[in-house]
Amino acid sequence: MRGYKKPTVSIIGASGYSGAELTKILLRHPSVKLERLYAHTQAGKKVQDLYPALDTDIVFAPYRGEQDTDIYFLALPHGEALSIVPQLADAGKLVIDLSGDFRLKNPKEHLKYYRKDKDARAVLPYAMPELCHDAIKQAKAVSNPGCYATGIILGAAPLVKKPLKGAAVKSVSCTAVSGISGAGRTGKTELSFSEMSGNVRAYKAGMHQHTPEILQALGTNTFEPAFGFMFTPMIAPLVRGIYAVLNIQLEKHLPVSQIREHFRDFYRPAPFVRVRETMTEVQHVAYTNFCDIHIAESAGNGSIVIVTAIDNLVKGAAGQAVQNMNIMLGYDETHGLL
Amino acid sequence: MRGYKKPTVSIIGASGYSGAELTKILLRHPSVKLERLYAHTQAGKKVQDLYPALDTDIVFAPYRGEQDTDIYFLALPHGEALSIVPQLADAGKLVIDLSGDFRLKNPKEHLKYYRKDKDARAVLPYAMPELCHDAIKQAKAVSNPGCYATGIILGAAPLVKKPLKGAAVKSVSCTAVSGISGAGRTGKTELSFSEMSGNVRAYKAGMHQHTPEILQALGTNTFEPAFGFMFTPMIAPLVRGIYAVLNIQLEKHLPVSQIREHFRDFYRPAPFVRVRETMTEVQHVAYTNFCDIHIAESAGNGSIVIVTAIDNLVKGAAGQAVQNMNIMLGYDETHGLL
Amino acid sequence: MRGYKKPTVSIIGASGYSGAELTKILLRHPSVKLERLYAHTQAGKKVQDLYPALDTDIVFAPYRGEQDTDIYFLALPHGEALSIVPQLADAGKLVIDLSGDFRLKNPKEHLKYYRKDKDARAVLPYAMPELCHDAIKQAKAVSNPGCYATGIILGAAPLVKKPLKGAAVKSVSCTAVSGISGAGRTGKTELSFSEMSGNVRAYKAGMHQHTPEILQALGTNTFEPAFGFMFTPMIAPLVRGIYAVLNIQLEKHLPVSQIREHFRDFYRPAPFVRVRETMTEVQHVAYTNFCDIHIAESAGNGSIVIVTAIDNLVKGAAGQAVQNMNIMLGYDETHGLL
Amino acid sequence: MRGYKKPTVSIIGASGYSGAELTKILLRHPSVKLERLYAHTQAGKKVQDLYPALDTDIVFAPYRGEQDTDIYFLALPHGEALSIVPQLADAGKLVIDLSGDFRLKNPKEHLKYYRKDKDARAVLPYAMPELCHDAIKQAKAVSNPGCYATGIILGAAPLVKKPLKGAAVKSVSCTAVSGISGAGRTGKTELSFSEMSGNVRAYKAGMHQHTPEILQALGTNTFEPAFGFMFTPMIAPLVRGIYAVLNIQLEKHLPVSQIREHFRDFYRPAPFVRVRETMTEVQHVAYTNFCDIHIAESAGNGSIVIVTAIDNLVKGAAGQAVQNMNIMLGYDETHGLL
Repeated sequence: MRGYKKPTVSIIGASGYSGAELTKILLRHPSVKLERLYAHTQAGKKVQDLYPALDTDIVFAPYRGEQDTDIYFLALPHGEALSIVPQLADAGKLVIDLSGDFRLKNPKEHLKYYRKDKDARAVLPYAMPELCHDAIKQAKAVSNPGCYATGIILGAAPLVKKPLKGAAVKSVSCTAVSGISGAGRTGKTELSFSEMSGNVRAYKAGMHQHTPEILQALGTNTFEPAFGFMFTPMIAPLVRGIYAVLNIQLEKHLPVSQIREHFRDFYRPAPFVRVRETMTEVQHVAYTNFCDIHIAESAGNGSIVIVTAIDNLVKGAAGQAVQNMNIMLGYDETHGLL
Repeated sequence: MRGYKKPTVSIIGASGYSGAELTKILLRHPSVKLERLYAHTQAGKKVQDLYPALDTDIVFAPYRGEQDTDIYFLALPHGEALSIVPQLADAGKLVIDLSGDFRLKNPKEHLKYYRKDKDARAVLPYAMPELCHDAIKQAKAVSNPGCYATGIILGAAPLVKKPLKGAAVKSVSCTAVSGISGAGRTGKTELSFSEMSGNVRAYKAGMHQHTPEILQALGTNTFEPAFGFMFTPMIAPLVRGIYAVLNIQLEKHLPVSQIREHFRDFYRPAPFVRVRETMTEVQHVAYTNFCDIHIAESAGNGSIVIVTAIDNLVKGAAGQAVQNMNIMLGYDETHGLL
Repeated sequence: MRGYKKPTVSIIGASGYSGAELTKILLRHPSVKLERLYAHTQAGKKVQDLYPALDTDIVFAPYRGEQDTDIYFLALPHGEALSIVPQLADAGKLVIDLSGDFRLKNPKEHLKYYRKDKDARAVLPYAMPELCHDAIKQAKAVSNPGCYATGIILGAAPLVKKPLKGAAVKSVSCTAVSGISGAGRTGKTELSFSEMSGNVRAYKAGMHQHTPEILQALGTNTFEPAFGFMFTPMIAPLVRGIYAVLNIQLEKHLPVSQIREHFRDFYRPAPFVRVRETMTEVQHVAYTNFCDIHIAESAGNGSIVIVTAIDNLVKGAAGQAVQNMNIMLGYDETHGLL
Repeated sequence: MRGYKKPTVSIIGASGYSGAELTKILLRHPSVKLERLYAHTQAGKKVQDLYPALDTDIVFAPYRGEQDTDIYFLALPHGEALSIVPQLADAGKLVIDLSGDFRLKNPKEHLKYYRKDKDARAVLPYAMPELCHDAIKQAKAVSNPGCYATGIILGAAPLVKKPLKGAAVKSVSCTAVSGISGAGRTGKTELSFSEMSGNVRAYKAGMHQHTPEILQALGTNTFEPAFGFMFTPMIAPLVRGIYAVLNIQLEKHLPVSQIREHFRDFYRPAPFVRVRETMTEVQHVAYTNFCDIHIAESAGNGSIVIVTAIDNLVKGAAGQAVQNMNIMLGYDETHGLL
């Protein structure tokens, strides 16, 4: 790209795990220049003092409305992006927001799950490249999917959004194991090593904020979905990963091979989705932007099991965000991500 | 128990994790005397050299048909107990078998899941104290439940075996996380620390050998169950525990509080089952014989989530086996287990 | 012990990990009755709600000077026991203090390492049964050793306190790995699962508060020890255990076998110290009150390596405290601990 | 590097952890082309089937003497490289051997520690860039350092090879914790997750094969070193990392600040060594080629503590190997490694 001036990048909310993962990926990215890392709590601290594995001299600064780079990633706690994104968008910046602030179209839904009021216009294109590639390409500002949502939507979409003849989805019941980094860089006693080593804990059964996000992305009404839906998240003693097991009830039985072929067709254009014949594992995708999918079993009554694995910090957050940036910039989707 | 001569105990297959856990519990048990530990592979080795945490001078010996103690626990690989149990039973010994050999009534089912032919008479009372207390009390030889089966059956039984009016169970879809000790004391590369740290791996989706055991215990036909049933087991980076999430579809909606009360009534006589109002965790039951159950959520469509936790080596194996021994001997069910 | 009224026990500071381990051991102890559990931060909460694995109905209460039981264990943060212990001792109670408040004889040393002034009389017999059995037997109040101190003192004492002819100790340099529970039940970010999984971190190199405790117990001047001494503690991703590697420089070379025999003679009366010919491991002693010692290697120049392992919460805290209680009550030292 | 044909690379012994790490780094390296991956045990298997995180279509092949690439990395079990390296070197290939076969100059030493006879000429330049940059630059074939050796040598070299006035090193006693991946991709029971979780185990105290390698690199006689030396390695429950604690006895006391400055001067030309003022941690260097060093403490008697951390698979193996390749090819030392 000789003679080409690299677009410049800022990360707002750079001191959390998603921000650090974004920093790591963007520092290596051949075609953009990471210039600013904003983080209130760590303002004044050298990035390398907080994350010695990151090879940069940048110092965390508090964000005070600067608009001096071309691209902005926001990895802020839910609620904090609502006021910042519009300003950056109005200034013509490319914006990728990793929070949940702009995902849900229905303010009632947003209020129910995020306990915050928001304007009905506070919605951005849902940036899951495997489902919305063109919308992302044309957008100036997008909302990056949640980690659980990414693993679950990619496991259900081929059957829900493009059902096989006579095999409509009747219900989706999923359980997903998350790495503990999903809770963020925090000092809660219940997330201490002594409490979580040897432990497994479910939470927010059927009430996780990614539930409406998943239903919305699958194209059904979030209050009265067209199919039964139940999602139970849990944490286990690992740092990275979302491992989702989907029990899907179809109207009729289909052989695993047919479902697998359907998935392969569906994801043919998607460089980061791998439909595998062997069981997926978290370690197969850890530190990568891949989503591995395995059609595990199909029972006579039309019940099938689909297992998906991603790295929650990469495909579930920072990696997918950079994948979206690549699409928005017209780069190859995989640029700097392999 | 002054003047009372303690019954003597042998463990056949004592060198595995279940055998070691049995040894630990029985060494502390106030009312029996552990005398013999049989293990072919470790024959001649001092128990304490293999398990230094166990404070005993017993030396592992190969089992050659001895019948010199009152009680026999068998913790052998599947298949090896088939020939030994009848001999001990005929000799009037109390026998508790921890293998899968005598669980399934249907030889076809046994052949399908254990890949071994067995005689239709090779069946023993299924020794889950919470469901079969009287049968165990009268038995001389029993079959101890499997680890996954224990966690799942206890989570589903109140609704399946004693359904609430108009709320029959339509389907049970469960995912369970097991500690890696469930795979036994073994040296497989895929179970090495380097492969399993940071990893999660499902296996045998819908095809695990505990599937027919669960259906049989729940009282339905194992080939054509009265309700949909799908079970996916997985291992995560912890040593002990079975953490089961059950998505149960009822014919109609019931509030969580009503279901919880139903569970409390159902398990009132069961000292080791705790129906908890807060989320269950593996660490709440690790190293104990408790099974904790939490009714997590109930959706309008009659779909509910039940979460159960046990220690796979205790309530899922050795502890339940000693609980059964207590019942067979007329001791208090909790004797030596608290 | 028919007709014998069991002594009653209280734990002050019962909600931390050492307090919980004490509770677990004392609930099972055949010859004492645990009656009161005091904990300010958790006052009013049921013990079982905080530690569901503990089978008791006791509710945490704030300590307000009660003196209604025979025995008091104090597991409080450093500094808080200074005022309570004298009152209980004056009231004729048996007192076992697990804090560092009464260990150091020299107030200057105490000030330096605990940053607290204390009265020169604030000292209690150092209750390491393997070194001070008689003093403990005659005491009404004792100071329970620290976790690192226990592992290191037991590894060095035979050579320092009873040197072999011509083989005085010239220097002791030790590194010890601690389980993270040693930092207590806390919510510090640097002790979160996400920060400690896959991590190792040394701290307080040569400045840990157990340094003077070790030197004092080994009978040398703590400011100008008779031999070189350096101790570096570190934490690794495990919950329980102290694993200490001692590099000891002797005045002359001695064969491993001779040193091992010397250790065996030295610890012959000690039921919980095991001098092993094979390498010690944390899992050999986890959840037990044993201290395993292995003489690993001896080089021609008189340099030897000694490795010790204990469970920091048991032999390093609660277990040793109950061992001391047994001695003070005239029970068998191992009573309720095997 | 327009118009420049990238050198081609083969890895012999590519299926182990070091081989996989080499593959990962070389696939991303901008200026070489990875073409062949040789592995007997996995011959015929797609690399991605064994390591799904590696994005390549290469299939493992058995090595049969091919010489069709410019560069060869050997990551074979000790002993297997002895016959292959000379052939490749004679053919004018660039060779980087990661085994211990060509490290020790003294065949007696090699026999003692590797239990294999070797020719006195079977020695290659010891490729630790921080100590032997020029020798590596001129070499066609080099021997890559061992993992423990790297962490320990880098922590001791500034004081041993360039002693401060009047402060010669009298003794070095070190303990190092290794991630379990250091034992290789293997299925030993003692390395299973169930055995190593919650465990720490030392081994080969004072007898590890890196002992003579360290002494040789530090420039002293390996049988009768000029200073006392004792090294005890141990494994703890983490996958990656070498964390070394060095207790060094100097002839006289020096302040930490002076020693730190000396280290900074010594390593000024070394891009991957970071002398840090805060404590080093494994997570600071995991997945990087950095070696972090912290001068932890200096006691009045001249005893100091130095702590170093590296990733055993990167700076301790594959990363350092690629760093050496860069030097041999005249590339920037950090090329493809940041």
